[in-house]
Amino acid sequence: MSKIQNYRRGEFMKRIGILTSGGDAPGMNAAVRAVTRTALANGVEVFGIRYGYAGLVAGDIFQMTSATVADKIERGGTFLYSARFPEFAQKEVQLKGIEQLKKHGIEALVVIGGDGSYHGALRLTEHGYNAIGLPGSIDNDIPYTDYTIGFDTACNTAMEAIDKIRDTATSHQRVFVVNVMGRDCGDIALHVGVATGADAIVVPEEEYDIKEIAETLKQGFANGKKHGLVVVAEGVMNAEDFKNELLKYGDFDARANVLAHMQRGGNPTVRDRVLSSKMGAYAVKLLLDGKGGLAVGIENNKLIAHSILDLFDAKHQGDYSLYSLNKDMAK
Amino acid sequence: MSKIQNYRRGEFMKRIGILTSGGDAPGMNAAVRAVTRTALANGVEVFGIRYGYAGLVAGDIFQMTSATVADKIERGGTFLYSARFPEFAQKEVQLKGIEQLKKHGIEALVVIGGDGSYHGALRLTEHGYNAIGLPGSIDNDIPYTDYTIGFDTACNTAMEAIDKIRDTATSHQRVFVVNVMGRDCGDIALHVGVATGADAIVVPEEEYDIKEIAETLKQGFANGKKHGLVVVAEGVMNAEDFKNELLKYGDFDARANVLAHMQRGGNPTVRDRVLSSKMGAYAVKLLLDGKGGLAVGIENNKLIAHSILDLFDAKHQGDYSLYSLNKDMAK
Amino acid sequence: MSKIQNYRRGEFMKRIGILTSGGDAPGMNAAVRAVTRTALANGVEVFGIRYGYAGLVAGDIFQMTSATVADKIERGGTFLYSARFPEFAQKEVQLKGIEQLKKHGIEALVVIGGDGSYHGALRLTEHGYNAIGLPGSIDNDIPYTDYTIGFDTACNTAMEAIDKIRDTATSHQRVFVVNVMGRDCGDIALHVGVATGADAIVVPEEEYDIKEIAETLKQGFANGKKHGLVVVAEGVMNAEDFKNELLKYGDFDARANVLAHMQRGGNPTVRDRVLSSKMGAYAVKLLLDGKGGLAVGIENNKLIAHSILDLFDAKHQGDYSLYSLNKDMAK
Amino acid sequence: MSKIQNYRRGEFMKRIGILTSGGDAPGMNAAVRAVTRTALANGVEVFGIRYGYAGLVAGDIFQMTSATVADKIERGGTFLYSARFPEFAQKEVQLKGIEQLKKHGIEALVVIGGDGSYHGALRLTEHGYNAIGLPGSIDNDIPYTDYTIGFDTACNTAMEAIDKIRDTATSHQRVFVVNVMGRDCGDIALHVGVATGADAIVVPEEEYDIKEIAETLKQGFANGKKHGLVVVAEGVMNAEDFKNELLKYGDFDARANVLAHMQRGGNPTVRDRVLSSKMGAYAVKLLLDGKGGLAVGIENNKLIAHSILDLFDAKHQGDYSLYSLNKDMAK
Repeated sequence: MSKIQNYRRGEFMKRIGILTSGGDAPGMNAAVRAVTRTALANGVEVFGIRYGYAGLVAGDIFQMTSATVADKIERGGTFLYSARFPEFAQKEVQLKGIEQLKKHGIEALVVIGGDGSYHGALRLTEHGYNAIGLPGSIDNDIPYTDYTIGFDTACNTAMEAIDKIRDTATSHQRVFVVNVMGRDCGDIALHVGVATGADAIVVPEEEYDIKEIAETLKQGFANGKKHGLVVVAEGVMNAEDFKNELLKYGDFDARANVLAHMQRGGNPTVRDRVLSSKMGAYAVKLLLDGKGGLAVGIENNKLIAHSILDLFDAKHQGDYSLYSLNKDMAK
Repeated sequence: MSKIQNYRRGEFMKRIGILTSGGDAPGMNAAVRAVTRTALANGVEVFGIRYGYAGLVAGDIFQMTSATVADKIERGGTFLYSARFPEFAQKEVQLKGIEQLKKHGIEALVVIGGDGSYHGALRLTEHGYNAIGLPGSIDNDIPYTDYTIGFDTACNTAMEAIDKIRDTATSHQRVFVVNVMGRDCGDIALHVGVATGADAIVVPEEEYDIKEIAETLKQGFANGKKHGLVVVAEGVMNAEDFKNELLKYGDFDARANVLAHMQRGGNPTVRDRVLSSKMGAYAVKLLLDGKGGLAVGIENNKLIAHSILDLFDAKHQGDYSLYSLNKDMAK
Repeated sequence: MSKIQNYRRGEFMKRIGILTSGGDAPGMNAAVRAVTRTALANGVEVFGIRYGYAGLVAGDIFQMTSATVADKIERGGTFLYSARFPEFAQKEVQLKGIEQLKKHGIEALVVIGGDGSYHGALRLTEHGYNAIGLPGSIDNDIPYTDYTIGFDTACNTAMEAIDKIRDTATSHQRVFVVNVMGRDCGDIALHVGVATGADAIVVPEEEYDIKEIAETLKQGFANGKKHGLVVVAEGVMNAEDFKNELLKYGDFDARANVLAHMQRGGNPTVRDRVLSSKMGAYAVKLLLDGKGGLAVGIENNKLIAHSILDLFDAKHQGDYSLYSLNKDMAK
Repeated sequence: MSKIQNYRRGEFMKRIGILTSGGDAPGMNAAVRAVTRTALANGVEVFGIRYGYAGLVAGDIFQMTSATVADKIERGGTFLYSARFPEFAQKEVQLKGIEQLKKHGIEALVVIGGDGSYHGALRLTEHGYNAIGLPGSIDNDIPYTDYTIGFDTACNTAMEAIDKIRDTATSHQRVFVVNVMGRDCGDIALHVGVATGADAIVVPEEEYDIKEIAETLKQGFANGKKHGLVVVAEGVMNAEDFKNELLKYGDFDARANVLAHMQRGGNPTVRDRVLSSKMGAYAVKLLLDGKGGLAVGIENNKLIAHSILDLFDAKHQGDYSLYSLNKDMAK
């Protein structure tokens, strides 16, 4: 990483690029807006790169003005579009991207996305183009940040869906097993489970005993509860399979639901819009300070930047106190 | 049906019962409230029967006051609970229900639910207990009514979910195949498909050509569209299977989503609350007029009542003009 | 009106224009989309006119493609913008508009808006340019249509706000007097009042007795109710003034709320999107049939077109049965 | 405060009481649920006290079970009701409250509310009845906590309303001046202003120059912006007055909106439900540890408890970095 920190404020940096990569997350547009407006306010030109690294290599690049990001803060998805592009792991493909940067006079980048996006940002920095990563991911699965862009919105979307499901669960005294997003990280399940008063929460980070969960549900009905709810991170098990396992230990009426892709979309919440705006502005400030190869995070309400290299060995730490909290609540 | 129409206004009817049956639907609580308040305003006592016909037979019956239905109009589900109870098709089970009615002095009933519920209502009427059916069903699958209680809410819930899915579809230039509710009736798919700008709508009432749908989607992307959307009534085919069929004719990136049970719950819309209130009040007026064995509907904005017998031979007619309308819109 | 009906399908009409005028309403974008896509599907070119009649006169006109209306169906407001432009009542101003139509080869128009917009449409038709009016107004104040574009969304927005207000009213045993939109037409108040379980609804079309309303509220608290709610159409009286009047007859804790402009915006509901789509397609069909000077409406679920002239003498008839229904419900 | 910390875990404490006081806030029910379930899980009985300190003195007290708090986590308002009761500042009134505690065997309390509620909690603790305060306030105006219960929900409610207002502002190229809640604390305005892309945010904590704001708005329109937005904390100035001031320096079309009480109600967000659940559980743990006279807060994601006495001299510190951030964003 000897090549990073090679720009000086106001000295060289005239143009930056911005792209979104990986799975889209609500708040990405707010972050793009914040990067754009902050850069323009500091006399730096901004170029939007469509379709992530694929668009970088293909040269799908356009100059952005303040108006380009007008009426974007409230929109879900990413108006710069995204694309999976594993080919960017290859050096020759990276060099094609570099060609495009040169062609447009872009000296540094902000990249919004998840893990894969950060690898690309690191490579670009190593090639002499400072890149700062912003954690765009609904799963909250990125290390060195308490919250990712999109997590709060995804949680609220899932919660609102489960609130509706509870109506029908209660009307019919049913158990619902609901899959929420979360491959390796159970944060959505944890927060949504607590927020919806789940009888049990199943996350990748904690052992679970399906028989014990069935007992909790049976006990709930015995105590007069009118519904049962198990929130399962989709990385652990498919809701349908989980339900079938559960029915081996209890004879309640049970249904499975997979909330799926709706959790990715929708207008971002206040929290996601504010977080994205702060992170976007901070990323530009890091670039203005000549920094690169860094991942922005928020820890204890403070913006921080860690070397992307550090992230690859780390794992996001969720608030697992919620897990035991929920066990008490479910009684 | 010689036994119906045997009460006279103000002469005999002192007490009515009310129950919800079959799948729950948003607006059922508003209907229960309207029945209760209208009856009380006319000097008739009201008894709530929990868990549908099962609760009737079991005697799970309680007297309701105006306060019982306070703060219920805005709630999804049914606070009287529901239950499947096919046993009520048997005469001896019906007679047990009649015993309970006698025990509580209940002379007539309002039953809110779908098809199955109407059979029970007809039987009770034949036994000398006038019963009026209200169409509670999100599917809009009940004949002799333009709209059922819960349909509008279910449509809006599905639409809002698909609006979110479109964000992510657009970000990734994907096709989404989305299952909405509707076993034999495609009305949710029709209305939601039009409302979300679907490229294609697949309903039980209309033939479809999966190859043609694939062509429409391909043409859409060729014309610069950023996403594809197919809304499929779940009675036609599972979204996953449909997607797999579709991929035989096009090589786009496609995903399947099943919106499932969330469509049943949630706070009812204005339309469902107003419709439920009107229907509930109307049902009481029919009972006060000594009527029974009737199903309430709304046709051309007017409340009507048909003999339940007529419904069994009939089929709900949706607004299929939406189907061809959408084909033009998708171009 | 001898000049209307002067085009024949496929014979002359090659280009139509579309504009939105007056107060914006959710669903206007869906209507613009439907007009555009239907026209294009029939081989007719479509020109968007920005800022209503002001933009027509100024020549703010651009050609629209299918892509122009992509991702617009779900948006509130009007992407063609609107403007008040009373000057269009003058003949010389109209002729300037006609000049612009000639310049762009536009032979006919669809105009979406309220009363004032219809006057303009009639004038253009008289000048030989067929114009069809669509009822865009949240107030539901346009004659010869059961529902206007935007009404359902405005009702749901108001209802959701009042549902929230009820939470705090109940927590504090308060009375809330809430102004909803509606200058001359009480339909929003009527539907929202019923949907939120208001103790009283005050509309321009019905007499009210403020002392009687105070009695109803006092009786409600005496019966154990935890909150009071009066929904007042803003055309009748300001909520603050109404509250102060009310306090002369009762000593409850009361607050006033004016919901105001948020009722105009927001993503349209299913009903508004479907209604707008149907009306937009129908307007194009009327133009293709050589019709002009007509206002589209929906009556008893059927699309109809009346001469705009007839509308000027008529008054929208709401469903006033809701008024008496609510009185029973409030007891 | 020598009398506090006089209980030992498991030794004496058999019964606790819980009340909500002051203005209601979304999440209060979730906090009551968490207190109840945590206490029961630790073998402690729980008594609900209705109508805050007024109900304490009046003896409106009832035993709660796990079922009492079922289906409450998702509800706005407070099902224990609230009431202003300044009389509780008097010692003889406090002693009447103490009588009631004795009568019901209640040894300690959790009080959810704002500033005023904390005074009562301190008095009870001084009388030998440990009381823990939870910060229930939508304004985020309580010191020693980064966030209060209800703040996140209020922000999202305000944001969603303003998102709708923006639709109509954009359609008509208007400026809207919107009052959000916040008497002495501008946190709602700050967060909502950033989240809605306001041109200017006006809070009690920062000086503002109305002429400069008018310039920003004029510049915005000159740059092609289609709407203007000023978010004003209601403690600073009424929106109508602010708008009139503003019009002295610019001749744009401007409207004023007061969002008012709807910001208090509504189903709590994930964040508020989780925060309330954590704080409720923590309050019980403090009581079990024999603590009293403390106010619970969350600082840097960690639960903390400060002496209530300390709070009276302190002032909540908002994230004022948002203020300057927004200035860059508005350009």
